[in-house]
Amino acid sequence: MINAVEWRGDSIRFLDQTKLPLEESYVQTDDVGIIADAIRTLKIRGAPLLGITAAYAVALSAVRSYEKDFPKFVSNLNGIAAVLSSTRPTAVNLSWALARMRTVVEGSSSVEQLKIRLIDEAKKIHAEDREMCRKIGINGALILPTAPAILTHCNTGALATGGSGTALSVITTAFDQGKDVKVYVDETRPLLQGARLTAWELINHGVNVTLITDSMAAFLMQQKKVDAVVVGADRICANGDVVNKIGTYNLAVLAKHHEIPFYVAAPVSTVDPALKSAEKVIIEERGSEEVRAFRNCVSAPENVPVYNPAFDRTPSSLVSAIITDRGVNRPPFNFFTIA
Amino acid sequence: MINAVEWRGDSIRFLDQTKLPLEESYVQTDDVGIIADAIRTLKIRGAPLLGITAAYAVALSAVRSYEKDFPKFVSNLNGIAAVLSSTRPTAVNLSWALARMRTVVEGSSSVEQLKIRLIDEAKKIHAEDREMCRKIGINGALILPTAPAILTHCNTGALATGGSGTALSVITTAFDQGKDVKVYVDETRPLLQGARLTAWELINHGVNVTLITDSMAAFLMQQKKVDAVVVGADRICANGDVVNKIGTYNLAVLAKHHEIPFYVAAPVSTVDPALKSAEKVIIEERGSEEVRAFRNCVSAPENVPVYNPAFDRTPSSLVSAIITDRGVNRPPFNFFTIA
Repeated sequence: MINAVEWRGDSIRFLDQTKLPLEESYVQTDDVGIIADAIRTLKIRGAPLLGITAAYAVALSAVRSYEKDFPKFVSNLNGIAAVLSSTRPTAVNLSWALARMRTVVEGSSSVEQLKIRLIDEAKKIHAEDREMCRKIGINGALILPTAPAILTHCNTGALATGGSGTALSVITTAFDQGKDVKVYVDETRPLLQGARLTAWELINHGVNVTLITDSMAAFLMQQKKVDAVVVGADRICANGDVVNKIGTYNLAVLAKHHEIPFYVAAPVSTVDPALKSAEKVIIEERGSEEVRAFRNCVSAPENVPVYNPAFDRTPSSLVSAIITDRGVNRPPFNFFTIA
Repeated sequence: MINAVEWRGDSIRFLDQTKLPLEESYVQTDDVGIIADAIRTLKIRGAPLLGITAAYAVALSAVRSYEKDFPKFVSNLNGIAAVLSSTRPTAVNLSWALARMRTVVEGSSSVEQLKIRLIDEAKKIHAEDREMCRKIGINGALILPTAPAILTHCNTGALATGGSGTALSVITTAFDQGKDVKVYVDETRPLLQGARLTAWELINHGVNVTLITDSMAAFLMQQKKVDAVVVGADRICANGDVVNKIGTYNLAVLAKHHEIPFYVAAPVSTVDPALKSAEKVIIEERGSEEVRAFRNCVSAPENVPVYNPAFDRTPSSLVSAIITDRGVNRPPFNFFTIA
């Protein structure tokens, strides 16, 4: 499996994801500034991976510090945490991981003790995420047939998490168990995470993968070339509605029309029981330039208005099952008794 | 309206469509070789426009010829026609137009008379196509509400035909009639005709247009932002099945799910009464490089397998109406009594 971010004792090694798929380029650094910059410029991305990286970055800055005075040492750490937190202000996992590191600081009283505890806590955050991915994979693989053709969307694998991923973990786990897995990955415009990242991960893993454009999914299904759709989730509501990368709802409607199971894979922590349904979830709209071009290749008139929602809402009525680290949930979804 | 190809008496002027949307660059030439090359390199594209261009190119070569001997003159013309025919071997309109020009040759006996007749025939082919577009537009605009929000796909406008287009003619005609038209155009991966060409045409025409990625159509419909989908057709079968640009079937399924009318606009000549249904229509598969890259920007691993069908099949059960130059056809479709 790819180690997108790795703790090396006195440094951190990460894969520069902006260079994918052209180049597999790793950076090893003991400079927290370089790590903060890597998060800011999307060299490191994926919600769970951002949390893990931020935790390691705090641990790294502690290990590299020569400060002996405890209050000053803690004050420096707070400064570092503030810098890390500002890199991607809307990334919930990032602030969640930093808050968790802060509780370690609060329970410590000496510099040397705190250094050890911070490293331990960062490793624990990473290990927990890895274990969550493993369980999602095992739970999901169980419900797939022995030779499934699966369509997936966006990137939900080792490049986005601390382990094998969410939806992609289901796929690679089924493959590792010996199932004859065939995967179709759509390119996932506008940012092309499917083409750039998921295709690359699956090739690396040795899985039989075929790339399509987002518009080809319906035609594939019509030809009975897809047995199941498996996607991740950014947020799951109490009624089972799913908010995920734009294009997810498109696939859910198509799957329903063609009577193909539509599976959502995510950790239990993605479920927000306070959200009754997805209707009121505000969908982030991103810049026009993402749709008018890809990287430096302009594809549209510079003055054309653009609608660019980053996510969409899939009603639970279109979801066949939600696969979590605790089990497989079938409709009607009731997240007070979530598995 | 854009004149994508124009007869100038002793030369032809055409818009270099490969430079769109960055640059509106016209080429005026009396060299048939340059025109053949422009067809070959997609500077001139769109099935009806290819036929018109080939006809003008034959007329141009006749006008520019100093040959006085009739048999030699005709033999030269046949050579030119062969060159033009080989530029895009699968383009039906191109060979259709050349065959029509050939009948003029067969009915003539002097060089000067033939020159005049060839020009007349080319102009007639162009005028007929323009008239067909005009009628499709009028027939289609009639069934749109007074303030329609329309989703369209690919390029079906003045850049692809000798007039106002097919699906796009319906839209611009409604706009010209004073309807408060709002258009969503999807980018149409992999070749991006929607983003590059249709967005450009609609801006030029002054129509309110918004560009989306192909994956956003479902989310737009869910929000009730689309009143009708209007697309073109490459081929229509006797039962009303439609073969059109990949992504068309995707939109048809989504429209059905959201109870939105799905209209297909095409000249009657697109209907092939010999084809009972679309099931047996062979779908052209194109090269992997179109999907692995976005124009010149590589977006996927160079070794990833790709599925790249150029067209898809929409069953007539998903089609609300087929708009032709003769009228509007509603289900059940019966193309022995086509309107």
